[in-house]
Amino acid sequence: MKTVATRSHTRDHAMRARSEAVIPGGMFGHQNVASLPEGFPQFMERGRGSHIWDLDGNEYIDFMCSYGPIVLGHAHPKVDAAAAAQQAEADCQNGPSSKMVELAELLVATIPHADWTTFAKNGTDATTWCVTIARAATGRKKVLAAKGAYHGAAPWCTPRLNGTTPEDRAHLLYYSYNNLESVEAAIEAAGDDTAAIIVSPFRHDAGFDSELVNPAFARGVREICDRTGAALILDDVRAGFRLDMGGSWETVGVRPDLSAYSKAIANGYALAAVAGNDRFRDGVRQVFATGSFWFAAVSMAASIATIQAMKEERGVEAMTRAGDLFREGLAAQAESHGLRIRQTGPVQMPFLTFSDDADYRKAMIFTGEAVKRGVYLHPRHNWFLSAAHTEDDIQSALEVTDVAFEQVRKAFGAG
Amino acid sequence: MKTVATRSHTRDHAMRARSEAVIPGGMFGHQNVASLPEGFPQFMERGRGSHIWDLDGNEYIDFMCSYGPIVLGHAHPKVDAAAAAQQAEADCQNGPSSKMVELAELLVATIPHADWTTFAKNGTDATTWCVTIARAATGRKKVLAAKGAYHGAAPWCTPRLNGTTPEDRAHLLYYSYNNLESVEAAIEAAGDDTAAIIVSPFRHDAGFDSELVNPAFARGVREICDRTGAALILDDVRAGFRLDMGGSWETVGVRPDLSAYSKAIANGYALAAVAGNDRFRDGVRQVFATGSFWFAAVSMAASIATIQAMKEERGVEAMTRAGDLFREGLAAQAESHGLRIRQTGPVQMPFLTFSDDADYRKAMIFTGEAVKRGVYLHPRHNWFLSAAHTEDDIQSALEVTDVAFEQVRKAFGAG
Repeated sequence: MKTVATRSHTRDHAMRARSEAVIPGGMFGHQNVASLPEGFPQFMERGRGSHIWDLDGNEYIDFMCSYGPIVLGHAHPKVDAAAAAQQAEADCQNGPSSKMVELAELLVATIPHADWTTFAKNGTDATTWCVTIARAATGRKKVLAAKGAYHGAAPWCTPRLNGTTPEDRAHLLYYSYNNLESVEAAIEAAGDDTAAIIVSPFRHDAGFDSELVNPAFARGVREICDRTGAALILDDVRAGFRLDMGGSWETVGVRPDLSAYSKAIANGYALAAVAGNDRFRDGVRQVFATGSFWFAAVSMAASIATIQAMKEERGVEAMTRAGDLFREGLAAQAESHGLRIRQTGPVQMPFLTFSDDADYRKAMIFTGEAVKRGVYLHPRHNWFLSAAHTEDDIQSALEVTDVAFEQVRKAFGAG
Repeated sequence: MKTVATRSHTRDHAMRARSEAVIPGGMFGHQNVASLPEGFPQFMERGRGSHIWDLDGNEYIDFMCSYGPIVLGHAHPKVDAAAAAQQAEADCQNGPSSKMVELAELLVATIPHADWTTFAKNGTDATTWCVTIARAATGRKKVLAAKGAYHGAAPWCTPRLNGTTPEDRAHLLYYSYNNLESVEAAIEAAGDDTAAIIVSPFRHDAGFDSELVNPAFARGVREICDRTGAALILDDVRAGFRLDMGGSWETVGVRPDLSAYSKAIANGYALAAVAGNDRFRDGVRQVFATGSFWFAAVSMAASIATIQAMKEERGVEAMTRAGDLFREGLAAQAESHGLRIRQTGPVQMPFLTFSDDADYRKAMIFTGEAVKRGVYLHPRHNWFLSAAHTEDDIQSALEVTDVAFEQVRKAFGAG
């Protein structure tokens, strides 16, 4: 890995200038690095396993995994081979290939609550589709969501209201994550009109510490849905296939009616899925949802290979081991530097924040010092591990974070 | 090509039975063949140029082109080589590759009204994004759309209301395509609150004859937008890159403020784009729109190769030549069989309907007889040509349609 002194971002900066001319602001969406520390490259070039290279050839150990999709490591040989074999036949056709059925069978066999699945391209497609299925099946309108939760970028759920109208969320009611009384209050406000409760497997709102689900809360929303006839929608877009291959609430023994998948489902190939139980099978048939590329075969072949490889390689366990090691190392380093930190979320999707750091200035220094030494973290968003992260990767990353913690202490002192 | 007698659908039917168990109804969305004539395969296996093969190995000349995406022919060597070269480096990363900038530059150079572009995955992403950009930029809410037009499958525009709420279209007003008075009436009803007029380059509503735009209508909506400050949004998702490489209304000399692209933009690789002028550059930056795979590089590399190949091969002209030949041949055949037909829409996206056939029974026989002889048409949806359709393809197809017309006449008589 190049040392700090030899790392250059010349090509990245030139490309940003070109981009500025033809893309508003030079970049859009969640991968815009404008608000990240200097040293974060905007343009990426290559990925292999747990390592990535930017446009200037700088190498990083990748702890964002493309914001989730890369679950087996970049360019996983079996996944890429399956995708290439399918691409040699066809991808987007007048109908699906048999790979769609094979994938649906594999998902139904893998996800205990699923009796069926359907496919789309974006996580937002899947969460939106879950909501429309629930409304069609129940004949009701109200949907309960956690305050501040991210369920996608459509007008009904985008975190930034510009360009939306109040009516886009006319039938949304909000509860507080892990607070069952707030769910009951929203249910009462909705009267007999609750179509669904949508919930993330854990609280992973950007800009906040992560918060694992309280098993009693998960059981409670399940009971409320059973009592009221509302659909329990698990938004497993971000966490799916990292916590448990059967769905992230298998870890607490609670099964949703509908679940939304995307990100890690095909190790980086564009795919989303809705999984549901038989109660909602007819609801799917009532809703019109489709897209030009939703039946394309390559991402489905990649998904089959991804799920098989995750099982063969025991990917969840591998991520958990690497994540435990990273968390322990970070905790020990922070203590040695006299810094108080919080590490939250599942270890496969770690997140680290500093005490007295509401404006993330310490986090900016920490991740800024790390990225220029070849460790790609994020100051305000949970990180992602992959099954390709080795003990060596973690040890190499810890050598860098030790220096990064030191810089935080130098800038802000201990505490 | 196999003769009718030797064509079998054994594997297709077996796969449908498997699919039924794990996908509600066995299939969903626009590629569901449940309402198409017997003989239409559900599952597709392979594509090369203008020819496709189903799961049972039956070969067809493809006049649907995957409902639009395949514009250069299936498995175009240059496009697939560009995609494979990019895939060998990386696809979905922590940021875009430089291919995003190259593609944006190419689109801005190709589309006269475009000063900038952004990228997504679905046509619906692009049309929805146009609407939110227009609302954000104008600070207004109302959007005018043509009655019966298809702008995607999101709650605000899906043709089937199940699972949506009335509020999803609270700020939509409707006009009649090619009827400027109806646009003026909707503008009046919207008061000072019109954010946008969204319009298809021609009327291509499923289940209706297509209707080319009246140039005076196109100029009229442009003038209304200029007068009121509303954004003119051209939904070029379906027609883009088939009528004119610079946008479908270049054919009538009218330039939109925002345009939505998808389908043909990358010859089958999943990609969508919004193109806009500088007036709406700031609006883009106000709206939060993103997706896990929106910055993935492979489809962008494929799109660059697609647009370059379309220019090199003069793809629009090739489709026009093939389309003219097909239209003339079909007209002569129908006349020879004493059948009155209408052929509508641009010849690159042909559509054929029969007189006295409101229930499409004649169209069902026509396309059913054609598909079992190896010509893949559609009874109720416009067809698509590609630059790979040769004069031989058209002559071979016409041999089949002659028999298909004969069967229509046998079943319903002349007229």
